[in-house]
Amino acid sequence: MTANPNPTAAMLVIGDEILSGRTRDKNIGTIADFCAELGIELREVRVVPDEIEAIVVALNELRARHTYLFTSGGIGPTHDDITADAVAKAFGVDLPVDARALKAITSRYTNFEMTPARLRMARIPAGGDPIENSVSAAPGIEIGNVFVMAGVPVIFEAMLASIAPKLEGGVKLSSTSVDSYVGEGTLGDELAAIQLSHPGVKIGSYPQFGVGKGPMTQIVMRSADKGALDSATEKVRAMIDRLHRERGIEPEKAGP
Amino acid sequence: MTANPNPTAAMLVIGDEILSGRTRDKNIGTIADFCAELGIELREVRVVPDEIEAIVVALNELRARHTYLFTSGGIGPTHDDITADAVAKAFGVDLPVDARALKAITSRYTNFEMTPARLRMARIPAGGDPIENSVSAAPGIEIGNVFVMAGVPVIFEAMLASIAPKLEGGVKLSSTSVDSYVGEGTLGDELAAIQLSHPGVKIGSYPQFGVGKGPMTQIVMRSADKGALDSATEKVRAMIDRLHRERGIEPEKAGP
Repeated sequence: MTANPNPTAAMLVIGDEILSGRTRDKNIGTIADFCAELGIELREVRVVPDEIEAIVVALNELRARHTYLFTSGGIGPTHDDITADAVAKAFGVDLPVDARALKAITSRYTNFEMTPARLRMARIPAGGDPIENSVSAAPGIEIGNVFVMAGVPVIFEAMLASIAPKLEGGVKLSSTSVDSYVGEGTLGDELAAIQLSHPGVKIGSYPQFGVGKGPMTQIVMRSADKGALDSATEKVRAMIDRLHRERGIEPEKAGP
Repeated sequence: MTANPNPTAAMLVIGDEILSGRTRDKNIGTIADFCAELGIELREVRVVPDEIEAIVVALNELRARHTYLFTSGGIGPTHDDITADAVAKAFGVDLPVDARALKAITSRYTNFEMTPARLRMARIPAGGDPIENSVSAAPGIEIGNVFVMAGVPVIFEAMLASIAPKLEGGVKLSSTSVDSYVGEGTLGDELAAIQLSHPGVKIGSYPQFGVGKGPMTQIVMRSADKGALDSATEKVRAMIDRLHRERGIEPEKAGP
Protein backbone atom coordinates (compact mmCIF):
# COMPACT_ATOMS: atom_id res chain seq x y z
CA MET A 1 0.00 0.00 0.00
CA THR A 2 1.31 3.38 -0.96
CA ALA A 3 1.55 6.38 1.29
CA ASN A 4 -1.73 8.26 1.41
CA PRO A 5 -2.22 11.35 3.56
CA ASN A 6 -6.00 10.86 3.57
CA PRO A 7 -6.78 7.16 3.82
CA THR A 8 -10.47 6.26 3.87
CA ALA A 9 -12.25 3.14 4.99
CA ALA A 10 -15.54 1.32 4.80
CA MET A 11 -16.98 -1.26 7.18
CA LEU A 12 -19.12 -4.18 6.04
CA VAL A 13 -21.14 -5.92 8.73
CA ILE A 14 -22.23 -9.38 7.60
CA GLY A 15 -25.00 -11.03 9.54
CA ASP A 16 -28.68 -11.95 9.50
CA GLU A 17 -28.67 -11.59 13.29
CA ILE A 18 -28.13 -7.82 13.07
CA LEU A 19 -30.88 -7.32 10.47
CA SER A 20 -33.35 -9.58 12.29
CA GLY A 21 -32.89 -7.71 15.56
CA ARG A 22 -31.54 -10.74 17.44
CA THR A 23 -28.16 -9.10 18.03
CA ARG A 24 -27.24 -5.46 18.61
CA ASP A 25 -24.14 -4.56 16.60
CA LYS A 26 -21.18 -3.33 18.60
CA ASN A 27 -18.50 -3.45 15.93
CA ILE A 28 -19.54 -0.28 14.06
CA GLY A 29 -18.72 1.84 17.10
CA THR A 30 -15.48 -0.06 17.61
CA ILE A 31 -14.28 0.44 14.04
CA ALA A 32 -15.27 4.13 14.16
CA ASP A 33 -13.03 4.65 17.19
CA PHE A 34 -10.27 2.51 15.67
CA CYS A 35 -10.24 4.55 12.44
CA ALA A 36 -10.38 7.90 14.28
CA GLU A 37 -7.41 6.85 16.39
CA LEU A 38 -5.37 6.02 13.27
CA GLY A 39 -6.39 9.07 11.23
CA ILE A 40 -8.33 6.91 8.77
CA GLU A 41 -11.62 8.45 7.65
CA LEU A 42 -14.47 5.98 8.01
CA ARG A 43 -16.68 6.97 5.06
CA GLU A 44 -19.44 4.37 5.00
CA VAL A 45 -20.84 1.33 6.71
CA ARG A 46 -23.10 -1.34 5.30
CA VAL A 47 -24.95 -4.22 6.91
CA VAL A 48 -25.89 -7.13 4.62
CA PRO A 49 -27.46 -10.55 5.24
CA ASP A 50 -25.69 -13.94 5.13
CA GLU A 51 -26.09 -14.26 1.35
CA ILE A 52 -23.18 -14.75 -1.02
CA GLU A 53 -24.39 -12.40 -3.74
CA ALA A 54 -25.20 -9.52 -1.38
CA ILE A 55 -21.80 -9.88 0.28
CA VAL A 56 -19.89 -10.07 -3.03
CA VAL A 57 -21.56 -6.92 -4.40
CA ALA A 58 -20.85 -4.96 -1.23
CA LEU A 59 -17.24 -6.25 -1.03
CA ASN A 60 -16.47 -5.21 -4.59
CA GLU A 61 -18.11 -1.80 -4.36
CA LEU A 62 -16.49 -0.90 -1.06
CA ARG A 63 -12.97 -2.24 -1.64
CA ALA A 64 -12.76 -0.34 -4.95
CA ARG A 65 -13.81 2.89 -3.31
CA HIS A 66 -11.68 3.02 -0.17
CA THR A 67 -8.15 2.58 1.06
CA TYR A 68 -9.30 -0.12 3.45
CA LEU A 69 -12.35 -2.33 3.83
CA PHE A 70 -13.02 -3.97 7.18
CA THR A 71 -15.62 -6.72 7.54
CA SER A 72 -17.15 -8.41 10.56
CA GLY A 73 -19.06 -11.67 10.78
CA GLY A 74 -19.48 -14.99 9.01
CA ILE A 75 -16.06 -16.61 9.53
CA GLY A 76 -16.96 -19.43 11.92
CA PRO A 77 -17.29 -23.17 11.23
CA THR A 78 -21.04 -23.45 10.61
CA HIS A 79 -23.03 -23.49 7.35
CA ASP A 80 -24.13 -19.86 7.80
CA ASP A 81 -20.49 -18.69 7.85
CA ILE A 82 -19.93 -17.88 4.19
CA THR A 83 -17.76 -14.76 4.25
CA ALA A 84 -14.60 -16.57 3.09
CA ASP A 85 -16.54 -18.02 0.15
CA ALA A 86 -17.84 -14.56 -0.74
CA VAL A 87 -14.37 -13.00 -0.51
CA ALA A 88 -12.89 -15.68 -2.79
CA LYS A 89 -15.70 -15.08 -5.27
CA ALA A 90 -15.31 -11.28 -5.09
CA PHE A 91 -11.58 -11.59 -5.82
CA GLY A 92 -12.10 -14.40 -8.37
CA VAL A 93 -9.65 -16.73 -6.61
CA ASP A 94 -9.67 -20.24 -5.12
CA LEU A 95 -10.32 -20.93 -1.46
CA PRO A 96 -7.81 -23.59 -0.36
CA VAL A 97 -7.09 -24.75 3.18
CA ASP A 98 -4.12 -22.67 4.33
CA ALA A 99 -1.30 -24.37 6.23
CA ARG A 100 -0.73 -21.37 8.51
CA ALA A 101 -4.42 -21.09 9.36
CA LEU A 102 -4.65 -24.83 9.97
CA LYS A 103 -1.68 -24.70 12.31
CA ALA A 104 -3.19 -21.78 14.23
CA ILE A 105 -6.39 -23.74 14.77
CA THR A 106 -4.92 -27.16 15.62
CA SER A 107 -2.15 -25.88 17.87
CA ARG A 108 -4.69 -24.29 20.18
CA TYR A 109 -6.44 -27.49 21.19
CA THR A 110 -5.46 -30.79 22.78
CA ASN A 111 -7.68 -33.78 22.10
CA PHE A 112 -8.80 -32.00 18.99
CA GLU A 113 -10.90 -33.54 16.28
CA MET A 114 -10.53 -31.81 12.92
CA THR A 115 -14.14 -31.94 11.77
CA PRO A 116 -15.07 -30.77 8.26
CA ALA A 117 -16.77 -27.83 9.99
CA ARG A 118 -13.52 -26.77 11.72
CA LEU A 119 -11.58 -27.27 8.50
CA ARG A 120 -13.78 -24.58 6.89
CA MET A 121 -12.18 -22.04 9.21
CA ALA A 122 -8.72 -22.80 7.82
CA ARG A 123 -9.63 -21.74 4.29
CA ILE A 124 -7.96 -18.55 3.07
CA PRO A 125 -8.64 -17.14 -0.42
CA ALA A 126 -5.54 -17.58 -2.63
CA GLY A 127 -3.20 -14.62 -2.21
CA GLY A 128 -4.52 -13.83 1.25
CA ASP A 129 -2.99 -14.15 4.70
CA PRO A 130 -4.44 -15.19 8.05
CA ILE A 131 -5.13 -12.50 10.67
CA GLU A 132 -4.13 -13.60 14.15
CA ASN A 133 -6.89 -14.25 16.66
CA SER A 134 -5.64 -14.35 20.24
CA VAL A 135 -9.09 -15.23 21.62
CA SER A 136 -10.29 -18.32 19.78
CA ALA A 137 -7.45 -19.16 17.36
CA ALA A 138 -9.51 -19.32 14.13
CA PRO A 139 -7.91 -16.62 11.99
CA GLY A 140 -9.36 -13.70 10.04
CA ILE A 141 -8.30 -13.02 6.47
CA GLU A 142 -6.24 -10.22 4.96
CA ILE A 143 -6.40 -9.99 1.17
CA GLY A 144 -5.60 -6.90 -0.87
CA ASN A 145 -7.04 -3.95 1.03
CA VAL A 146 -9.71 -6.11 2.72
CA PHE A 147 -9.57 -7.25 6.35
CA VAL A 148 -12.06 -10.00 7.17
CA MET A 149 -12.75 -10.34 10.88
CA ALA A 150 -15.06 -12.11 13.31
CA GLY A 151 -18.47 -10.82 14.36
CA VAL A 152 -18.05 -11.68 18.05
CA PRO A 153 -16.97 -8.29 19.45
CA VAL A 154 -14.14 -9.55 21.67
CA ILE A 155 -12.61 -11.42 18.71
CA PHE A 156 -13.21 -8.51 16.32
CA GLU A 157 -11.27 -6.29 18.73
CA ALA A 158 -8.45 -8.83 19.09
CA MET A 159 -8.10 -8.99 15.30
CA LEU A 160 -8.07 -5.19 15.02
CA ALA A 161 -5.22 -5.13 17.51
CA SER A 162 -3.26 -7.53 15.34
CA ILE A 163 -3.80 -5.61 12.07
CA ALA A 164 -3.30 -2.09 13.46
CA PRO A 165 0.50 -2.08 12.92
CA LYS A 166 0.01 -2.96 9.24
CA LEU A 167 -2.26 -0.02 8.45
CA GLU A 168 -1.06 3.33 7.25
CA GLY A 169 -2.77 6.03 9.21
CA GLY A 170 -3.35 9.56 8.03
CA VAL A 171 -3.69 12.97 9.55
CA LYS A 172 -5.51 12.60 12.84
CA LEU A 173 -8.34 15.01 13.44
CA SER A 174 -8.45 16.96 16.66
CA SER A 175 -11.80 17.72 18.16
CA THR A 176 -13.32 20.07 20.69
CA SER A 177 -16.81 20.41 22.06
CA VAL A 178 -18.89 23.12 23.70
CA ASP A 179 -22.07 22.41 25.69
CA SER A 180 -25.03 24.71 25.30
CA TYR A 181 -28.21 25.01 27.34
CA VAL A 182 -30.04 26.80 24.57
CA GLY A 183 -31.67 24.78 21.82
CA GLU A 184 -30.49 24.24 18.27
CA GLY A 185 -33.18 26.54 16.86
CA THR A 186 -31.75 29.44 18.87
CA LEU A 187 -28.09 28.97 18.03
CA GLY A 188 -28.48 27.53 14.53
CA ASP A 189 -28.18 30.69 12.44
CA GLU A 190 -25.06 31.99 14.17
CA LEU A 191 -23.51 28.54 14.13
CA ALA A 192 -24.08 28.30 10.37
CA ALA A 193 -22.18 31.59 9.95
CA ILE A 194 -19.26 30.27 12.02
CA GLN A 195 -19.20 27.09 9.91
CA LEU A 196 -19.19 29.21 6.73
CA SER A 197 -16.18 31.21 7.91
CA HIS A 198 -14.28 28.04 8.98
CA PRO A 199 -14.39 25.71 5.97
CA GLY A 200 -11.50 23.61 7.31
CA VAL A 201 -13.46 22.71 10.44
CA LYS A 202 -16.40 20.31 10.50
CA ILE A 203 -18.94 21.64 12.98
CA GLY A 204 -21.69 19.31 14.16
CA SER A 205 -24.59 20.14 16.44
CA TYR A 206 -26.08 17.37 18.58
CA PRO A 207 -29.23 17.99 20.59
CA GLN A 208 -29.96 15.86 23.61
CA PHE A 209 -33.40 15.21 24.99
CA GLY A 210 -34.41 14.07 28.41
CA VAL A 211 -31.18 15.01 30.20
CA GLY A 212 -31.31 17.76 32.82
CA LYS A 213 -33.61 20.74 32.55
CA GLY A 214 -34.26 22.51 29.29
CA PRO A 215 -32.52 21.98 25.98
CA MET A 216 -28.97 20.74 25.89
CA THR A 217 -27.01 20.93 22.68
CA GLN A 218 -23.45 19.79 22.19
CA ILE A 219 -21.43 21.52 19.48
CA VAL A 220 -18.58 19.34 18.24
CA MET A 221 -15.76 20.67 16.07
CA ARG A 222 -13.26 18.48 14.21
CA SER A 223 -10.28 19.48 12.10
CA ALA A 224 -6.74 18.53 11.17
CA ASP A 225 -5.86 22.26 11.37
CA LYS A 226 -5.27 23.11 15.00
CA GLY A 227 -5.33 26.88 14.44
CA ALA A 228 -8.64 26.82 12.58
CA LEU A 229 -10.07 24.49 15.23
CA ASP A 230 -9.07 26.85 18.05
CA SER A 231 -10.53 29.83 16.21
CA ALA A 232 -13.86 28.09 15.56
CA THR A 233 -14.01 26.80 19.14
CA GLU A 234 -13.40 30.27 20.53
CA LYS A 235 -16.15 31.76 18.37
CA VAL A 236 -18.63 29.05 19.33
CA ARG A 237 -17.79 29.39 23.01
CA ALA A 238 -18.25 33.18 22.87
CA MET A 239 -21.60 32.77 21.15
CA ILE A 240 -22.84 30.20 23.66
CA ASP A 241 -21.63 32.29 26.63
CA ARG A 242 -23.54 35.30 25.28
CA LEU A 243 -26.71 33.29 24.63
CA HIS A 244 -26.51 31.89 28.17
CA ARG A 245 -25.95 35.36 29.64
CA GLU A 246 -28.85 36.87 27.70
CA ARG A 247 -31.15 34.21 29.09
CA GLY A 248 -29.79 34.21 32.63
CA ILE A 249 -28.60 30.62 32.28
CA GLU A 250 -25.85 29.52 34.63
CA PRO A 251 -24.45 26.45 32.88
CA GLU A 252 -22.97 24.93 36.01
CA LYS A 253 -26.45 24.81 37.53
CA ALA A 254 -28.38 24.01 34.38
CA GLY A 255 -27.96 20.30 34.03
CA PRO A 256 -25.85 17.19 34.17
CA MET B 1 -48.73 1.04 -1.78
CA THR B 2 -49.98 -2.27 -3.09
CA ALA B 3 -50.36 -5.47 -1.11
CA ASN B 4 -47.10 -7.35 -0.93
CA PRO B 5 -46.73 -10.60 1.01
CA ASN B 6 -42.96 -10.11 1.34
CA PRO B 7 -42.23 -6.44 1.93
CA THR B 8 -38.57 -5.55 2.32
CA ALA B 9 -36.88 -2.53 3.82
CA ALA B 10 -33.59 -0.71 4.03
CA MET B 11 -32.34 1.65 6.71
CA LEU B 12 -30.13 4.66 5.96
CA VAL B 13 -28.33 6.18 8.94
CA ILE B 14 -27.17 9.71 8.15
CA GLY B 15 -24.56 11.20 10.43
CA ASP B 16 -20.89 12.10 10.74
CA GLU B 17 -21.19 11.43 14.47
CA ILE B 18 -21.72 7.69 13.93
CA LEU B 19 -18.76 7.39 11.52
CA SER B 20 -16.44 9.49 13.69
CA GLY B 21 -17.15 7.37 16.76
CA ARG B 22 -18.66 10.24 18.76
CA THR B 23 -22.07 8.58 18.95
CA ARG B 24 -23.04 4.92 19.18
CA ASP B 25 -25.94 4.20 16.86
CA LYS B 26 -29.06 2.82 18.54
CA ASN B 27 -31.52 3.17 15.68
CA ILE B 28 -30.33 0.14 13.66
CA GLY B 29 -31.36 -2.21 16.46
CA THR B 30 -34.65 -0.35 16.87
CA ILE B 31 -35.56 -0.56 13.18
CA ALA B 32 -34.57 -4.25 13.09
CA ASP B 33 -37.04 -5.00 15.90
CA PHE B 34 -39.68 -2.74 14.33
CA CYS B 35 -39.45 -4.52 10.96
CA ALA B 36 -39.45 -8.00 12.53
CA GLU B 37 -42.57 -7.12 14.50
CA LEU B 38 -44.37 -6.04 11.30
CA GLY B 39 -43.18 -8.93 9.13
CA ILE B 40 -41.07 -6.59 6.99
CA GLU B 41 -37.70 -8.05 6.01
CA LEU B 42 -34.88 -5.61 6.77
CA ARG B 43 -32.45 -6.38 3.93
CA GLU B 44 -29.72 -3.79 4.30
CA VAL B 45 -28.45 -0.89 6.34
CA ARG B 46 -26.10 1.88 5.32
CA VAL B 47 -24.39 4.61 7.29
CA VAL B 48 -23.29 7.69 5.32
CA PRO B 49 -21.77 11.05 6.30
CA ASP B 50 -23.54 14.43 6.32
CA GLU B 51 -22.85 15.04 2.62
CA ILE B 52 -25.57 15.73 0.08
CA GLU B 53 -24.13 13.59 -2.72
CA ALA B 54 -23.51 10.54 -0.54
CA ILE B 55 -27.03 10.78 0.89
CA VAL B 56 -28.67 11.24 -2.53
CA VAL B 57 -26.90 8.20 -4.02
CA ALA B 58 -27.86 6.00 -1.07
CA LEU B 59 -31.45 7.28 -1.05
CA ASN B 60 -31.95 6.53 -4.72
CA GLU B 61 -30.32 3.10 -4.64
CA LEU B 62 -32.19 1.96 -1.55
CA ARG B 63 -35.66 3.35 -2.30
CA ALA B 64 -35.61 1.72 -5.75
CA ARG B 65 -34.69 -1.64 -4.30
CA HIS B 66 -37.04 -2.01 -1.35
CA THR B 67 -40.68 -1.66 -0.36
CA TYR B 68 -39.72 0.86 2.33
CA LEU B 69 -36.71 3.01 3.10
CA PHE B 70 -36.30 4.39 6.60
CA THR B 71 -33.74 7.08 7.39
CA SER B 72 -32.46 8.53 10.65
CA GLY B 73 -30.57 11.75 11.24
CA GLY B 74 -30.05 15.20 9.77
CA ILE B 75 -33.48 16.78 10.16
CA GLY B 76 -32.78 19.40 12.83
CA PRO B 77 -32.39 23.18 12.46
CA THR B 78 -28.60 23.48 12.14
CA HIS B 79 -26.39 23.77 9.06
CA ASP B 80 -25.33 20.11 9.31
CA ASP B 81 -28.95 18.95 9.00
CA ILE B 82 -29.22 18.44 5.25
CA THR B 83 -31.37 15.36 4.91
CA ALA B 84 -34.45 17.26 3.65
CA ASP B 85 -32.28 18.93 0.98
CA ALA B 86 -30.91 15.54 -0.08
CA VAL B 87 -34.38 13.98 -0.23
CA ALA B 88 -35.69 16.83 -2.39
CA LYS B 89 -32.70 16.42 -4.68
CA ALA B 90 -33.08 12.62 -4.83
CA PHE B 91 -36.75 12.99 -5.84
CA GLY B 92 -36.05 15.98 -8.11
CA VAL B 93 -38.62 18.19 -6.36
CA ASP B 94 -38.72 21.58 -4.60
CA LEU B 95 -38.36 21.98 -0.87
CA PRO B 96 -40.94 24.55 0.25
CA VAL B 97 -41.95 25.45 3.79
CA ASP B 98 -44.98 23.28 4.55
CA ALA B 99 -47.96 24.86 6.35
CA ARG B 100 -48.69 21.68 8.36
CA ALA B 101 -45.07 21.33 9.45
CA LEU B 102 -44.89 25.02 10.35
CA LYS B 103 -48.04 24.71 12.46
CA ALA B 104 -46.69 21.64 14.26
CA ILE B 105 -43.53 23.53 15.18
CA THR B 106 -45.07 26.89 16.17
CA SER B 107 -48.00 25.45 18.11
CA ARG B 108 -45.63 23.69 20.49
CA TYR B 109 -43.98 26.81 21.86
CA THR B 110 -45.11 29.95 23.62
CA ASN B 111 -42.86 32.99 23.33
CA PHE B 112 -41.46 31.44 20.23
CA GLU B 113 -39.16 33.18 17.81
CA MET B 114 -39.26 31.69 14.30
CA THR B 115 -35.58 31.89 13.43
CA PRO B 116 -34.40 30.98 9.94
CA ALA B 117 -32.83 27.91 11.56
CA ARG B 118 -36.18 26.75 12.94
CA LEU B 119 -37.87 27.49 9.62
CA ARG B 120 -35.56 24.94 7.99
CA MET B 121 -37.33 22.24 9.97
CA ALA B 122 -40.68 23.13 8.38
CA ARG B 123 -39.49 22.34 4.87
CA ILE B 124 -41.07 19.27 3.27
CA PRO B 125 -40.12 18.12 -0.25
CA ALA B 126 -43.03 18.75 -2.66
CA GLY B 127 -45.40 15.78 -2.64
CA GLY B 128 -44.33 14.71 0.82
CA ASP B 129 -46.14 14.78 4.16
CA PRO B 130 -44.96 15.53 7.69
CA ILE B 131 -44.46 12.65 10.14
CA GLU B 132 -45.74 13.47 13.61
CA ASN B 133 -43.17 13.92 16.36
CA SER B 134 -44.69 13.74 19.83
CA VAL B 135 -41.37 14.50 21.54
CA SER B 136 -40.03 17.72 20.04
CA ALA B 137 -42.69 18.77 17.48
CA ALA B 138 -40.38 19.17 14.45
CA PRO B 139 -41.79 16.63 11.98
CA GLY B 140 -40.21 13.88 9.93
CA ILE B 141 -40.98 13.48 6.24
CA GLU B 142 -42.90 10.80 4.37
CA ILE B 143 -42.46 10.88 0.60
CA GLY B 144 -43.10 7.96 -1.73
CA ASN B 145 -41.80 4.87 0.05
CA VAL B 146 -39.27 6.88 2.09
CA PHE B 147 -39.70 7.73 5.78
CA VAL B 148 -37.28 10.39 6.99
CA MET B 149 -36.87 10.45 10.77
CA ALA B 150 -34.76 12.01 13.49
CA GLY B 151 -31.43 10.64 14.70
CA VAL B 152 -32.15 11.20 18.40
CA PRO B 153 -33.31 7.71 19.45
CA VAL B 154 -36.30 8.81 21.54
CA ILE B 155 -37.62 10.90 18.62
CA PHE B 156 -36.83 8.20 16.07
CA GLU B 157 -38.94 5.80 18.13
CA ALA B 158 -41.79 8.30 18.46
CA MET B 159 -41.84 8.77 14.69
CA LEU B 160 -41.84 5.00 14.11
CA ALA B 161 -44.87 4.74 16.37
CA SER B 162 -46.66 7.33 14.25
CA ILE B 163 -45.87 5.67 10.89
CA ALA B 164 -46.47 2.05 11.97
CA PRO B 165 -50.22 2.10 11.14
CA LYS B 166 -49.44 3.27 7.59
CA LEU B 167 -47.12 0.39 6.74
CA GLU B 168 -48.22 -2.87 5.19
CA GLY B 169 -46.65 -5.73 7.07
CA GLY B 170 -45.97 -9.16 5.65
CA VAL B 171 -45.71 -12.69 6.92
CA LYS B 172 -44.16 -12.59 10.36
CA LEU B 173 -41.39 -15.08 11.00
CA SER B 174 -41.53 -17.28 14.06
CA SER B 175 -38.29 -18.16 15.74
CA THR B 176 -36.95 -20.69 18.20
CA SER B 177 -33.56 -21.14 19.81
CA VAL B 178 -31.59 -23.97 21.39
CA ASP B 179 -28.59 -23.41 23.65
CA SER B 180 -25.60 -25.68 23.33
CA TYR B 181 -22.58 -26.13 25.55
CA VAL B 182 -20.53 -27.69 22.81
CA GLY B 183 -18.68 -25.46 20.35
CA GLU B 184 -19.63 -24.67 16.77
CA GLY B 185 -16.83 -26.85 15.41
CA THR B 186 -18.39 -29.89 17.08
CA LEU B 187 -21.98 -29.37 16.01
CA GLY B 188 -21.32 -27.66 12.66
CA ASP B 189 -21.45 -30.66 10.33
CA GLU B 190 -24.68 -32.09 11.71
CA LEU B 191 -26.24 -28.64 11.82
CA ALA B 192 -25.40 -28.12 8.13
CA ALA B 193 -27.23 -31.37 7.33
CA ILE B 194 -30.31 -30.21 9.26
CA GLN B 195 -30.22 -26.89 7.39
CA LEU B 196 -29.99 -28.75 4.08
CA SER B 197 -33.07 -30.83 4.87
CA HIS B 198 -35.07 -27.77 6.03
CA PRO B 199 -34.73 -25.21 3.22
CA GLY B 200 -37.72 -23.21 4.49
CA VAL B 201 -36.02 -22.54 7.83
CA LYS B 202 -33.10 -20.14 8.30
CA ILE B 203 -30.76 -21.68 10.85
CA GLY B 204 -28.11 -19.45 12.41
CA SER B 205 -25.39 -20.44 14.83
CA TYR B 206 -24.07 -17.84 17.28
CA PRO B 207 -21.08 -18.59 19.47
CA GLN B 208 -20.60 -16.70 22.68
CA PHE B 209 -17.29 -16.16 24.38
CA GLY B 210 -16.53 -15.28 27.93
CA VAL B 211 -19.88 -16.33 29.38
CA GLY B 212 -19.93 -19.27 31.80
CA LYS B 213 -17.55 -22.18 31.50
CA GLY B 214 -16.65 -23.71 28.17
CA PRO B 215 -18.14 -22.98 24.81
CA MET B 216 -21.70 -21.77 24.50
CA THR B 217 -23.44 -21.70 21.14
CA GLN B 218 -26.95 -20.54 20.48
CA ILE B 219 -28.76 -22.05 17.50
CA VAL B 220 -31.52 -19.76 16.22
CA MET B 221 -34.16 -20.92 13.74
CA ARG B 222 -36.54 -18.62 11.88
CA SER B 223 -39.34 -19.45 9.47
CA ALA B 224 -42.80 -18.43 8.35
CA ASP B 225 -43.67 -22.16 8.20
CA LYS B 226 -44.54 -23.30 11.72
CA GLY B 227 -44.42 -27.03 10.86
CA ALA B 228 -40.97 -26.80 9.28
CA LEU B 229 -39.77 -24.69 12.19
CA ASP B 230 -40.96 -27.25 14.74
CA SER B 231 -39.35 -30.09 12.81
CA ALA B 232 -35.99 -28.31 12.55
CA THR B 233 -36.11 -27.29 16.21
CA GLU B 234 -36.80 -30.87 17.29
CA LYS B 235 -33.89 -32.18 15.23
CA VAL B 236 -31.50 -29.55 16.58
CA ARG B 237 -32.62 -30.18 20.16
CA ALA B 238 -32.13 -33.95 19.76
CA MET B 239 -28.65 -33.41 18.32
CA ILE B 240 -27.61 -31.05 21.11
CA ASP B 241 -29.04 -33.35 23.82
CA ARG B 242 -27.01 -36.23 22.39
CA LEU B 243 -23.81 -34.18 22.13
CA HIS B 244 -24.27 -33.05 25.75
CA ARG B 245 -24.93 -36.64 26.91
CA GLU B 246 -21.89 -38.00 25.06
CA ARG B 247 -19.74 -35.43 26.83
CA GLY B 248 -21.33 -35.72 30.25
CA ILE B 249 -22.51 -32.08 30.09
CA GLU B 250 -25.45 -31.15 32.30
CA PRO B 251 -26.71 -27.96 30.65
CA GLU B 252 -28.46 -26.65 33.75
CA LYS B 253 -25.09 -26.61 35.51
CA ALA B 254 -22.93 -25.65 32.59
CA GLY B 255 -23.35 -21.98 32.12
CA PRO B 256 -24.63 -18.58 33.00
